Amino acid sequence: MSTAKLKIAQKLKLKKYRDELKLFVAEGLRLCEMASEIEFGFYTADFLKNERAARLVEKIKTCATLYEIPAASFEKISDTKTPQGIILICRQKIFTVEEILQKKLIVALDAVSDAGNLGTILRTAEAFNCGVVILENSADIFNSKVVRASMGAIFNLPVVKMTRADFLLTMQNSGVEILAAALDSTAEIYYNHNFKNKSAVVFGSEATGVSTEILNSAKKIYIPMTGRAESLNVATAAAIIISEFFRQN
Amino acid sequence: MSTAKLKIAQKLKLKKYRDELKLFVAEGLRLCEMASEIEFGFYTADFLKNERAARLVEKIKTCATLYEIPAASFEKISDTKTPQGIILICRQKIFTVEEILQKKLIVALDAVSDAGNLGTILRTAEAFNCGVVILENSADIFNSKVVRASMGAIFNLPVVKMTRADFLLTMQNSGVEILAAALDSTAEIYYNHNFKNKSAVVFGSEATGVSTEILNSAKKIYIPMTGRAESLNVATAAAIIISEFFRQN
Repeated sequence: MSTAKLKIAQKLKLKKYRDELKLFVAEGLRLCEMASEIEFGFYTADFLKNERAARLVEKIKTCATLYEIPAASFEKISDTKTPQGIILICRQKIFTVEEILQKKLIVALDAVSDAGNLGTILRTAEAFNCGVVILENSADIFNSKVVRASMGAIFNLPVVKMTRADFLLTMQNSGVEILAAALDSTAEIYYNHNFKNKSAVVFGSEATGVSTEILNSAKKIYIPMTGRAESLNVATAAAIIISEFFRQN
Repeated sequence: MSTAKLKIAQKLKLKKYRDELKLFVAEGLRLCEMASEIEFGFYTADFLKNERAARLVEKIKTCATLYEIPAASFEKISDTKTPQGIILICRQKIFTVEEILQKKLIVALDAVSDAGNLGTILRTAEAFNCGVVILENSADIFNSKVVRASMGAIFNLPVVKMTRADFLLTMQNSGVEILAAALDSTAEIYYNHNFKNKSAVVFGSEATGVSTEILNSAKKIYIPMTGRAESLNVATAAAIIISEFFRQN
């Protein structure tokens, strides 16, 4: 029985199966403590030796089935070099565009493909109570590296996937101001922009920035820099602009 | 001859030898294009197939010796899964405390041990023309993962190492205001703080925050959050506070 479940856990390493089964994997004590919508999970006998860990297993067992499995089996489904000994299989929460539109600030990601950056942006978006839209060619938010970098934000944050065309149309029809973080010093300096409107800010890939399709319909803002560095990390740029939005509001 | 140089490259994976030889390793096309103070380097025949790469090798050869080595040898000194085929051995620049004190904002890192976070903070500090002080128990700034995450900032940024005690004394004697990013909602909200003075802002480890030794002598500031997340990533918090300093100045 746990063998069939182990096979599911293994399959969930691939986006194809995560999309199909609407499940994803959360690994590690701290992340699993924040988990919700747990379908089932696994732990090793060694994991129980830690008191905090044992309490967590006890708590989860009241709402979901947890299988104790040998360390060798655990290593096969684990995604880390030194597994802590707990993995939970969680249901992907489904959000509607309406839920995203209720937020004062929407963060849209246009081909942000680095898992660490994407996870860090999700964590920042959750800390500031934003909604998130994932546009084409971004990393999968349920990729285990994104889940880890999000530090549990994935369990609460309202996120939807949209095409660029749908995103632009929806925001325009809902009276949401569309902004794009641009590497263009002719754009408006971000802190001079009046952020009092409900807004959607688009961040692009580190390599190529926000796509032309979005730039053509957005107001461009940029972060002035004085050093010799070419640009900021995209997660850094997102944090600076998101925090300025809430400073003004 | 290149064998002896290869041995040095291999040794530089260890902090002990980086400290002793005052050298470090930069790997990859983009990073090597930004390199300065090059001692020597290596490339593979395949690397030259790319025109931009060939131009870079040509340029570096005018000031430093580059060895063409077989792919198998290259893999041994490389720190990445899919090596691009260029590695440079560079001299660590030495900065004085006086050079750091010339900066309007000094960023101090108190036991920031994650290499990716440290590199991202260096990149942000360089973009905003800050000086950096590395306190005890932080990661080594010449660790290859820090160098990569810094995206070349390491080549320009003034950085010094200090003990906490020396740091506090130096800043106090130089009339620099010492601030600490705290996870303490009784602290002053960061954007309410008047950043007009020359300042040093200390960021602590993600696990335990800024040390008591520093907190006792610093003015605490914090970033208010509305979501359910426990805290922001330390590189995110640094970006928010550094950018607010320069917005006010």
